[in-house]
Amino acid sequence: MKIRDFRQVTEREEMPGVSLRLVISPEDGAPNFVMRVFEVQPGSSTPWHSHDWEHEVFVLAGEGEVVSSDGKTPIKANRVVFVAPNEMHQFVNSGFGVLRFICCIPRVD
Amino acid sequence: MKIRDFRQVTEREEMPGVSLRLVISPEDGAPNFVMRVFEVQPGSSTPWHSHDWEHEVFVLAGEGEVVSSDGKTPIKANRVVFVAPNEMHQFVNSGFGVLRFICCIPRVD
Repeated sequence: MKIRDFRQVTEREEMPGVSLRLVISPEDGAPNFVMRVFEVQPGSSTPWHSHDWEHEVFVLAGEGEVVSSDGKTPIKANRVVFVAPNEMHQFVNSGFGVLRFICCIPRVD
Repeated sequence: MKIRDFRQVTEREEMPGVSLRLVISPEDGAPNFVMRVFEVQPGSSTPWHSHDWEHEVFVLAGEGEVVSSDGKTPIKANRVVFVAPNEMHQFVNSGFGVLRFICCIPRVD
């Protein structure tokens, strides 16, 4: 068993304004999927992109929008987002504080 | 894409004092793993047990303890817990409010 505060995990910059912590990963012995915590700064966004794996997202803090091919949907704490494989998506921080969310993905190594 | 507040998902009682919402599941199209939100009432606990799949946990609210074969460790918001396959574990609410946590598991149907 491994127990820690997510802030103890090394933060790495994915791109300007977007950071990522790999809070549970194969390094911890996780065999099937990975838990990550993203922080998006106000005015920043994750890329508009797709890939052949899914996202399972839980919003922890902040306010923003999820963009899909169907348009934009507001998100804030307690919102759950399922992004299917190969679906275009983007997370936008349109608020004044950090947009923080958990994003789990299958193990892809 | 599916977006909703986790509280919109039907809550079911796992056992007295312990409820569960299946917030992302195969019904949503999730191919590999499942996101669940547990709520444990003050004084209640999940069972002391093990199984051959892992847990990836993020604590959202409340205070409690995780019990393993090595003893008890305090948990509260922002703590991440990885429970390996076949590891004995139990989540105990030792606080005054609801202990709420995300618990992801591989798809086991």
